Amino acid sequence: MSTRIGIIGYGNLGRGVECAIRQNNDMELVAVFTRRDPATVSILTDTAKVCSVDGISEWKDKIDVMILCGGSATDLPTQTPEYVKYFNVVDSFDTHARIPEHFSKVDAAAKESGHIGIISVGWDPGMFSLNRLYANAILPEGSDYTFWGKGVSQGHSDAIRRVPGVKNAKQYTIPVDSTLEAVREGSNPELTTRQKHTRECFVVLEEGADAAKVEEAIKTMPNYFADYDTTVHFISEEELIANHSGIPHGGFVIRSGLTGWNNENKHIIEYSLKLDSNPEFTTSVLIAYARAAHRLAKEGQSGCKTVFDIAPSYLSAKSGEELRAAML
Amino acid sequence: MSTRIGIIGYGNLGRGVECAIRQNNDMELVAVFTRRDPATVSILTDTAKVCSVDGISEWKDKIDVMILCGGSATDLPTQTPEYVKYFNVVDSFDTHARIPEHFSKVDAAAKESGHIGIISVGWDPGMFSLNRLYANAILPEGSDYTFWGKGVSQGHSDAIRRVPGVKNAKQYTIPVDSTLEAVREGSNPELTTRQKHTRECFVVLEEGADAAKVEEAIKTMPNYFADYDTTVHFISEEELIANHSGIPHGGFVIRSGLTGWNNENKHIIEYSLKLDSNPEFTTSVLIAYARAAHRLAKEGQSGCKTVFDIAPSYLSAKSGEELRAAML
Repeated sequence: MSTRIGIIGYGNLGRGVECAIRQNNDMELVAVFTRRDPATVSILTDTAKVCSVDGISEWKDKIDVMILCGGSATDLPTQTPEYVKYFNVVDSFDTHARIPEHFSKVDAAAKESGHIGIISVGWDPGMFSLNRLYANAILPEGSDYTFWGKGVSQGHSDAIRRVPGVKNAKQYTIPVDSTLEAVREGSNPELTTRQKHTRECFVVLEEGADAAKVEEAIKTMPNYFADYDTTVHFISEEELIANHSGIPHGGFVIRSGLTGWNNENKHIIEYSLKLDSNPEFTTSVLIAYARAAHRLAKEGQSGCKTVFDIAPSYLSAKSGEELRAAML
Repeated sequence: MSTRIGIIGYGNLGRGVECAIRQNNDMELVAVFTRRDPATVSILTDTAKVCSVDGISEWKDKIDVMILCGGSATDLPTQTPEYVKYFNVVDSFDTHARIPEHFSKVDAAAKESGHIGIISVGWDPGMFSLNRLYANAILPEGSDYTFWGKGVSQGHSDAIRRVPGVKNAKQYTIPVDSTLEAVREGSNPELTTRQKHTRECFVVLEEGADAAKVEEAIKTMPNYFADYDTTVHFISEEELIANHSGIPHGGFVIRSGLTGWNNENKHIIEYSLKLDSNPEFTTSVLIAYARAAHRLAKEGQSGCKTVFDIAPSYLSAKSGEELRAAML
């Protein structure tokens, strides 16, 4: 009766899915599929196999939901439409601008094969999107605010590492407290990029590198840093490893709206996350939607779905009766 | 193409529904039904009628969704199963312990008549319930916390008014800041009633009443105040009207959970509401679910539903395509 899960890709997300499965006793990890030599990949679950992704279609009837743990830039745009031919799948595709295109491709393939493909699952897109939708449906007259952090931005950390003279780096995105407070007060401010977030960088220099030059190169980098108030700290590699190895993240979705015959009453809806591990939280969401994918498939549904299309009860292992008695 | 709405009961909730309809241009108020003499009830919407509830069944084909704005104690337990015989209905039944029983009755009547009945819509039950469900599905290992306030508790205000010597009163429920902070830090405290909320009372005395006796009677009242730190302020009727006529409310739903192979990472999910008008926010949620009720009925579905059973996209006037492009 449990949901048999497969994982494609065993990086931070793959490991996170494995951990999340262990917390849900209606879920079972069957196999991890990798592009590497399976002999070189060791996983934590004794009862699961590590297999080459090449023979994956043979697992067609042995896996209820396949969770795709590749990246959004190059892996998922081809993997999700491909693997939904054989499996119900869930992915965390997070390139917001390309979601409509990804949806169409997955939908066509999923409908043809009779499977469910749930895309863009996680926290943003994912839980943040849900909260934007619910809050907008409830308060049609209002303004939306999304803040990210405090947390590590992988993209910005990578951008710093590409600066000549930089050996290693971690970048934190931090929401500006006073701006958050202004939004919570319902003053509906129009905000510039600079007013919403600051960026804090911890940088390890290559030997002999010019700190002033590196700092200048970071702070003036277009798109990534030029529009923000950026702080650069130079630290040793040991300190970076000791104090900045985690991947925390989080953020805030706030809708500030008005009701009343003359819009005389103010309301603030706020959803926030404070996460020690960005990938483990993301994969905890993926597993809840894997449960939904399995149920939808058992009902005979097919096609591409997002978090918007799935009734909340499908995410829980509890029955409708239990949910109404305990959580409503 | 718009959804034709009827309202039963024209108190704070009925007026709130009327205001919410005005903010949603796919909604139209057709009629307000009252147990009073219709000639004595004046509403804000020029184009809608005020009718006696007695002839309501004649409106069967002229109203897509009926919103029931009665109370949970005596009105809704009979009204919702009765009116779902003729209409798709939405109610805000909020007696948590009796939801399973209410659900069964509405479900039976709704299935027999082929209508949709959505019950227990609002913020608690409602949005708070949804957030409990989502957060529990994502973080199975964790603790739930719900705080209410700062806001006016109608039940507690009524209880004070029943104390001999009290002419009028308003009671505010206030979450304890330091406790909220401890929960947000992820320390997973076990909390007593007293540690979670305080109660602040603004009381107008009858002439000649003994303030000390009234204060003692309030503070020692079982269930309502005895288990809380309660503050009582005696004020004039003018001051009560000037400063305490609003019906603000709100609260916090927090889940604090752990992930990782050895539960080594901490996560906090927090949802909060800060509402100038409790009834207007509640009815804004009702209207979003009225949209869902209409759509579900058009799909040919029937029976009783709660917020747990309805995919988020049903609440929005936007198409799936628009939602994916703008909010995912």
